[in-house]
Amino acid sequence: MSQDARFLALALSLGRRGQGLTWPNPAVGCVIVRAGRIVGRGWTAPGGRPHAETQALAQAGAAARGATAYVSLEPCAHHGETPPCTQALIGAGIARVVAPLPDSDPRVSGQGFEQLRTAGIEVSTGLLAEEAARDHAGFFKRVNEGRPALTLKLANSFDGRIATASGHSQWITGPEARAVVHGLRARADAVMVGAGTARADDPMLTVRGLGPRRQPVRIVTSRQLDLPLMSQLARTAGEVPLWVCHGPDADAALKEAWTGLGAKLVECALIGRQLDLRAVLAALGREGLTRVFCEGGGALAASLLAADLVDELVGFTAGLAIGAEGLPSIGALGLAQLDEARRFTLVETRAIGGDVMHRWTR
Amino acid sequence: MSQDARFLALALSLGRRGQGLTWPNPAVGCVIVRAGRIVGRGWTAPGGRPHAETQALAQAGAAARGATAYVSLEPCAHHGETPPCTQALIGAGIARVVAPLPDSDPRVSGQGFEQLRTAGIEVSTGLLAEEAARDHAGFFKRVNEGRPALTLKLANSFDGRIATASGHSQWITGPEARAVVHGLRARADAVMVGAGTARADDPMLTVRGLGPRRQPVRIVTSRQLDLPLMSQLARTAGEVPLWVCHGPDADAALKEAWTGLGAKLVECALIGRQLDLRAVLAALGREGLTRVFCEGGGALAASLLAADLVDELVGFTAGLAIGAEGLPSIGALGLAQLDEARRFTLVETRAIGGDVMHRWTR
Repeated sequence: MSQDARFLALALSLGRRGQGLTWPNPAVGCVIVRAGRIVGRGWTAPGGRPHAETQALAQAGAAARGATAYVSLEPCAHHGETPPCTQALIGAGIARVVAPLPDSDPRVSGQGFEQLRTAGIEVSTGLLAEEAARDHAGFFKRVNEGRPALTLKLANSFDGRIATASGHSQWITGPEARAVVHGLRARADAVMVGAGTARADDPMLTVRGLGPRRQPVRIVTSRQLDLPLMSQLARTAGEVPLWVCHGPDADAALKEAWTGLGAKLVECALIGRQLDLRAVLAALGREGLTRVFCEGGGALAASLLAADLVDELVGFTAGLAIGAEGLPSIGALGLAQLDEARRFTLVETRAIGGDVMHRWTR
Repeated sequence: MSQDARFLALALSLGRRGQGLTWPNPAVGCVIVRAGRIVGRGWTAPGGRPHAETQALAQAGAAARGATAYVSLEPCAHHGETPPCTQALIGAGIARVVAPLPDSDPRVSGQGFEQLRTAGIEVSTGLLAEEAARDHAGFFKRVNEGRPALTLKLANSFDGRIATASGHSQWITGPEARAVVHGLRARADAVMVGAGTARADDPMLTVRGLGPRRQPVRIVTSRQLDLPLMSQLARTAGEVPLWVCHGPDADAALKEAWTGLGAKLVECALIGRQLDLRAVLAALGREGLTRVFCEGGGALAASLLAADLVDELVGFTAGLAIGAEGLPSIGALGLAQLDEARRFTLVETRAIGGDVMHRWTR
């Protein structure tokens, strides 16, 4: 790996520290290097400000003059809440900028690189572009398609079941796999489940075991808003953000009750008798979310797959069989032929404790 | 790894070349080493004779004098069809024998080592014992419990389905995974499916793509023997061994028809209205089988799991969802609580082409 690739990979890994915390802004990392020595590091702060470049430049101080800045995304060029990062890099006397990709935000795209070049800064792009595209997939998805990137997680038995016929589901996978799930939740802007899972499991949907941190938004889809008011989600709605995506026909008294508990209500259109999940994701995109982590259940998973809205699948397979009467991890899809199903591409598989984790992308 | 471990690992890997071909005998490997140089190698020949030691000694000739023999199982000590291997090793002047395990055959167990020691040969045991126990699991199982070791293979979609509701199943996994399945079949003494799969898929159940070789026995379980007489299995029953395990109430005319086609009929007891799979495996053990590879379908898989007869699970997971109306890989098991299910221990997981393979043992 070249020196450029090494420093840029470091910038990318710093950027990933902000995943789940910077929405609607991208989670960017920056490393400033002078004569082979790192003189500044930064990553987008929780909430999106200050930017990675600002922090790395502050750390570098006068050492930034003549240095190279490795940034995981094109520096911003527009005057938003703060002066653009391009001006900060120029003002600090940076000689060279290495970044994998142009920003996909039309206010920035290409303009950042252009401003830097005009100021006499050497700009190199294209290195680690694929990795950066993966890291910023949620941000790009929202800017380009108006919706967050969606990861669907399924933790099931060897035969694809998430509970026995009587609803017993604790625990199918082991503690190591469950810890990994908390790590995945932490890197998402929001964790989403369907109403059936919210009713059956009474989940908290918080990140636990990773120290005090900003929690991802918790989202439940429930057309009629008929979720139990005596539940962990209801009880904690005032402390940790809870958004409920409901249909136009939800009962007014229930709307009032959930608002009173502290939940945010997101009204979405229907398709037939069900929530239109494309409309749900568009609404979540308008709210600023870039990365949504969906944990089922079977009905929501099937609807997301049927609407072709799943960007990434993460599976955990445990070494036990539950049998055909068990609750399926994915509901009915109405396929007749196998070639009607989207095939996902395997990214990795590995053992996590006694379970198998496998990750797939579109 | 010590020199002993290296040579013994080689003997084990030579032994595995015979897997599927030596039943009812174990598939043994032998390496003879003199002054750090390999002077003879051998493995049990197809059909079980000659033994690994005989072949390795013949290759070594006079160089066996004073040499060390690495054998993947205790050398045989009883006069069967041929003189015992212990006598051959003593006669050839072998100075030292390294073997992982005693044989579990009561005619041999410990006596082989004893005869060698009495003749002044140094005997080391215990090295790579776990690996050897895995390699010889089928042979040990048959000797100790009277039945072959059973591997259950399941190739299914992300959500545990083996076909769409309309029965479409070609192909869920990719060509690489299917090639691996042919390799697994080749290392089994027999390949087994249930009657439902035989009817639905019209399979050949042969090993293909690995050159000309002795084929594993093909086994179908069918209580009433009501399998299609116009099928690939029926058509080829005279060329490749086909055994049908049926109940006592099978129709006499069908028995005659299948015998006429060249199939071997194995009558087994019933439990209620179904074949008693414990009796089926005991019958297969009496016929000499040590390693059976079962490829489903869902009903047979469920019955084997419910009877706790599965020693190893091999899963192939493809990156597509079929949905809850699809055919389940494992039929009904009647579990109420998760702790009623046997948990299998993960041995390995890896990518095979675009699919995930995962292997588990009891």
